[in-house]
Amino acid sequence: MIFSSDNWAGVHPRIAEALHRNSDGFAASYGASDLDKEIEAKFNEVFEREVAVFFVGTGTAANSLALASVNRPGGVSFCHREAHVIEDECGAPEFFTHGARLVPVDGGNGKIDPDELRSELKRFPPGFVHAGQPMAISITQATEIGTVYAPEEIDAIAEIAKAHALPLHMDGARFANALVELDVTPAEMTWKRGVDVLSFGATKNGCWCAEALVFMDPEKARDLPFIRKRAAQLFSKSRFIAAQFHGYFEDDLWLDLARHSNAMAARLQDGLKSSNRARAGWTSQTNEVFAIVRKADAEAARAKGAAFYDWTPPRALNGMIAEDEVLTRLVTSFATRDEDVDGFLELVA
Amino acid sequence: MIFSSDNWAGVHPRIAEALHRNSDGFAASYGASDLDKEIEAKFNEVFEREVAVFFVGTGTAANSLALASVNRPGGVSFCHREAHVIEDECGAPEFFTHGARLVPVDGGNGKIDPDELRSELKRFPPGFVHAGQPMAISITQATEIGTVYAPEEIDAIAEIAKAHALPLHMDGARFANALVELDVTPAEMTWKRGVDVLSFGATKNGCWCAEALVFMDPEKARDLPFIRKRAAQLFSKSRFIAAQFHGYFEDDLWLDLARHSNAMAARLQDGLKSSNRARAGWTSQTNEVFAIVRKADAEAARAKGAAFYDWTPPRALNGMIAEDEVLTRLVTSFATRDEDVDGFLELVA
Amino acid sequence: MIFSSDNWAGVHPRIAEALHRNSDGFAASYGASDLDKEIEAKFNEVFEREVAVFFVGTGTAANSLALASVNRPGGVSFCHREAHVIEDECGAPEFFTHGARLVPVDGGNGKIDPDELRSELKRFPPGFVHAGQPMAISITQATEIGTVYAPEEIDAIAEIAKAHALPLHMDGARFANALVELDVTPAEMTWKRGVDVLSFGATKNGCWCAEALVFMDPEKARDLPFIRKRAAQLFSKSRFIAAQFHGYFEDDLWLDLARHSNAMAARLQDGLKSSNRARAGWTSQTNEVFAIVRKADAEAARAKGAAFYDWTPPRALNGMIAEDEVLTRLVTSFATRDEDVDGFLELVA
Amino acid sequence: MIFSSDNWAGVHPRIAEALHRNSDGFAASYGASDLDKEIEAKFNEVFEREVAVFFVGTGTAANSLALASVNRPGGVSFCHREAHVIEDECGAPEFFTHGARLVPVDGGNGKIDPDELRSELKRFPPGFVHAGQPMAISITQATEIGTVYAPEEIDAIAEIAKAHALPLHMDGARFANALVELDVTPAEMTWKRGVDVLSFGATKNGCWCAEALVFMDPEKARDLPFIRKRAAQLFSKSRFIAAQFHGYFEDDLWLDLARHSNAMAARLQDGLKSSNRARAGWTSQTNEVFAIVRKADAEAARAKGAAFYDWTPPRALNGMIAEDEVLTRLVTSFATRDEDVDGFLELVA
Repeated sequence: MIFSSDNWAGVHPRIAEALHRNSDGFAASYGASDLDKEIEAKFNEVFEREVAVFFVGTGTAANSLALASVNRPGGVSFCHREAHVIEDECGAPEFFTHGARLVPVDGGNGKIDPDELRSELKRFPPGFVHAGQPMAISITQATEIGTVYAPEEIDAIAEIAKAHALPLHMDGARFANALVELDVTPAEMTWKRGVDVLSFGATKNGCWCAEALVFMDPEKARDLPFIRKRAAQLFSKSRFIAAQFHGYFEDDLWLDLARHSNAMAARLQDGLKSSNRARAGWTSQTNEVFAIVRKADAEAARAKGAAFYDWTPPRALNGMIAEDEVLTRLVTSFATRDEDVDGFLELVA
Repeated sequence: MIFSSDNWAGVHPRIAEALHRNSDGFAASYGASDLDKEIEAKFNEVFEREVAVFFVGTGTAANSLALASVNRPGGVSFCHREAHVIEDECGAPEFFTHGARLVPVDGGNGKIDPDELRSELKRFPPGFVHAGQPMAISITQATEIGTVYAPEEIDAIAEIAKAHALPLHMDGARFANALVELDVTPAEMTWKRGVDVLSFGATKNGCWCAEALVFMDPEKARDLPFIRKRAAQLFSKSRFIAAQFHGYFEDDLWLDLARHSNAMAARLQDGLKSSNRARAGWTSQTNEVFAIVRKADAEAARAKGAAFYDWTPPRALNGMIAEDEVLTRLVTSFATRDEDVDGFLELVA
Repeated sequence: MIFSSDNWAGVHPRIAEALHRNSDGFAASYGASDLDKEIEAKFNEVFEREVAVFFVGTGTAANSLALASVNRPGGVSFCHREAHVIEDECGAPEFFTHGARLVPVDGGNGKIDPDELRSELKRFPPGFVHAGQPMAISITQATEIGTVYAPEEIDAIAEIAKAHALPLHMDGARFANALVELDVTPAEMTWKRGVDVLSFGATKNGCWCAEALVFMDPEKARDLPFIRKRAAQLFSKSRFIAAQFHGYFEDDLWLDLARHSNAMAARLQDGLKSSNRARAGWTSQTNEVFAIVRKADAEAARAKGAAFYDWTPPRALNGMIAEDEVLTRLVTSFATRDEDVDGFLELVA
Repeated sequence: MIFSSDNWAGVHPRIAEALHRNSDGFAASYGASDLDKEIEAKFNEVFEREVAVFFVGTGTAANSLALASVNRPGGVSFCHREAHVIEDECGAPEFFTHGARLVPVDGGNGKIDPDELRSELKRFPPGFVHAGQPMAISITQATEIGTVYAPEEIDAIAEIAKAHALPLHMDGARFANALVELDVTPAEMTWKRGVDVLSFGATKNGCWCAEALVFMDPEKARDLPFIRKRAAQLFSKSRFIAAQFHGYFEDDLWLDLARHSNAMAARLQDGLKSSNRARAGWTSQTNEVFAIVRKADAEAARAKGAAFYDWTPPRALNGMIAEDEVLTRLVTSFATRDEDVDGFLELVA
């Protein structure tokens, strides 16, 4: 009954096994091994085009280096008010861009509202030096609250990006969970929609430590080798990341794992729907469910070993949570089992 | 016959096994798991005092964050002219310190000469704002060229550091190799000598990816949690690093691995001594041997599968390498076997 | 009829004269001249305590270096949503602090609301590494919209700062204008209220280029000489700034100039009060008046030589400006004359 | 008898007068005034092409922003070992470039030796991520030790810059002094030789505070407005810099002032030539003379009011300065008079 985060799970056995398989023998370091090359080619295949791929160690690194790659002096990037880059990375994006600002944009369901984005952009007229200059738009797919941008919603943001000649970044810490929910291809969720740079996360979906920065146009990544090395994100035994991706992609394991996580969340959500003690705060589409439960039930569940975090309610829930209730975040993963979900529901729903 | 670098080796089976053992089940993320705590306690035991330990992903990260932790505006750090921080990290230390400068100091055998250090420090009189202000001294143990600071040599540098109220950093990317060569305890090679901050490397000595930043005085590390997170070096599934250290320290495996690497280098050096075709450029004390071999022999060896890098000769070798010779760097590791060494010697010595 | 900004005025004749008086002969550079020392002592007198004073070239520099002096990794500073530091400095504060974030705080009348501040601070629980750590609170006196914090309003913010052990910075680009409005001493408006660091602006109030960073506790300024030099703000012929301050403080010229500016704004505001074509958007207390005028009148005034900027209406004015009206900002200065004000009023009021 | 530095002199009367002339009335701020535009046009005339000009407050700012404008991640710039950027700016260039490194290059007479430069560049093979990547070459004209690059010497450096596709920066803190010595046009000393960006200093040559960053190709300056504003170097009453340049360029005053300074230095040098108590350390070509004088004479001169700094002897003078002698730096300026020089010579020569 561990719903604290998908990063509380360890590594999926098949990925552990891939790591083991590639652990002995000598191989060129710093990303030059055959296995590294093989995985880079695999990314081309996954994205149906030649992309530039850079392995990094954390999602924060991927996001920060993505922004660093499009950095401009006095630069301003736009993201959703609750985005991970602005809420949970201790200022890493600002640090790696030497102080470029993140501007929070409002929008329902954890997604940037195109009108709000347009309105924020107006505060930065071209050449108006006092305000700074726009440099990027960043969206999170799936979002921090378990929702997903529909393809046409990505289109709407991409159109604004294009109109302002701004690169579009996608934080895909839970890329796979969004992908299987939408049932589209990686290409259809990224470059075919106008996404330029992607933080491709695999850690939360069953790896130990495997994140990749993917540039849809390799030309745009020319300085990235230096940006990554200077950021201390070039791993000497880089194949330990490559090996994880090997297992991750094999037989589309990654999609299976994401489907499992999402299914566990759906099961949880279904349980809440039929409850009259607890309910979902909003409809999750991936592997994060936000449930309003009675405080006493939450305590009781914790006493029985359930683990999960309370969550600060967004404004949209103002007045909708009673005094004796609390909003909780429940994250499922590849390792969540039916009995975890059902056991938890029994305690709170 | 792979002597390119110790980071061409994969992971030692016992460390792989420790990783495997700790791979399933749920555990708190971001360094809060029981295993993380256990390894932190293990570091206290290894260093015979309470230290503050921070796992990071690369040696470059450890070094850069060590300097960032003592950062001062206009700051200047002193290191050997051939130190990794100044030669091989793409400016990461300067980046993480927002531009603090590294000043190269001369010295024979890859080690800072105390007189040269004193002389460089004189260029920065206290309060002379134009020059900047000293902020740290960094030594590498073992050095980039396979030598080792004797305890009294560390004392000499530490004395200068203390006289200038400067923290002393040790880049221990090959800490274990130096330790077993000197046959002292970790405490005797660090804080008992005046070392304040240590980059404790385990990757080159048999791990996949396990580096730690060790503060001998935990008080000095108060901002480090923020520095590390902002630097994108806080790993969500941090236990994958902890698990490697678990295997690394168990039964003193780490010392055995370092002894093996050093022994392989000694075997190589012995072979060179008895050769009249090739010779060592200088006496190595750890797992890096720098051999002067005939160019033709080097080519022939490569043709037979040997891998190693040519090395730019230091000034001390001026005039000592013939036209038809080349200086090569030969690095041994836990994975080097007798037959690798002997096979190579057969080809060049 | 120039109301574009107080920085459109040149230099006051008495300050020009002081500059002239101190222009020949040799004097020590980089702030070491007798005149520099004399002005530093004058600041002690003005603030009734020993302060540390650093001349810099721009208000942006003063604000940015103030924040740089209290910089922390992952640092977060709090300022009003419309503060100059967050709206008009092209990210300089973020740049000089290597990416420390500015968090906008809401509040009426251009002033931080203490409750909103407390609420924002709650988002940064001590030691919660993902969010970053609070590092400063910054208030603007007078504010960007011509209002002034009353002493007890500064107290309220200072109390929160103290409770969170945060330094309190005051952006005093229009310090004198606030001072004469409140009719208090510099000490009473700063350190007696809990202000730790002050950007003391004189440029807008009649100098060419004279800004000072004032630390109420000189101990807190120990690194500032290096911070300033590294920021390229140590002027070689520093006495050209000192000389301006000499004229500025002599016979309390600075207070007279501020009183004049404020009086011109009051005259403007009075004229608006008795108009039924135009009106003030809110009550100004210093030298900036925000007038709602008919668009046609504004155009006509511009055609006759009046200069002023349109202003984006704050939310508080939502629905209060008609389609054929526009919000304009009218800034007075030492150089504004009665006839400028009256001439303008004739055209729009 | 003040020879401490040319920045100990105040402002030249004609420049003071120009400042006075332009001090009243209103004018657009932040560089948009007619006078600003007029001076920008004047720069085009001076350089015989359309250039992009940016006024800044200090030479350190000009140099640092020049490098910031060509910044690259992991960037490395090459300058002479004794250059102002690397010796006297407290790390400002590194700070403004977010940590790009300055590599000191050897060379006699204060000038980069082309062979040494080529040799240093070899340490940075294209794409070798560990070393970083070259990003600029910076020369100082006149040099820190009073010498001047002959046109063909600039050509030699420019050729290397071009071969490596690197921008060439010239630190012209004493640009005028070099210009009149070589008797060439500004164009002939800069873009006709391959210089891309120039720090054009006027402060040391008679202004209060007037420095300009000049881009020979305006296209390369596209981000500079943001770089400058973010660096807190956009002055609100920018015309106070423009006015100084107005007086500076009028009737070629600037060249006359430089000729005077140089002549004073030549007079000093001539006096040393005919002395058998003192002598020049090397031949100065501009307004800085480095004299070897008897320690007792130096003390006596100081006692009589002479002011000058001792100087650390360069290696080239090893063994050439007796125990009872000291190397001193003597800087002349527009304000130096014959009697200052003769009076000083009487005391030491």
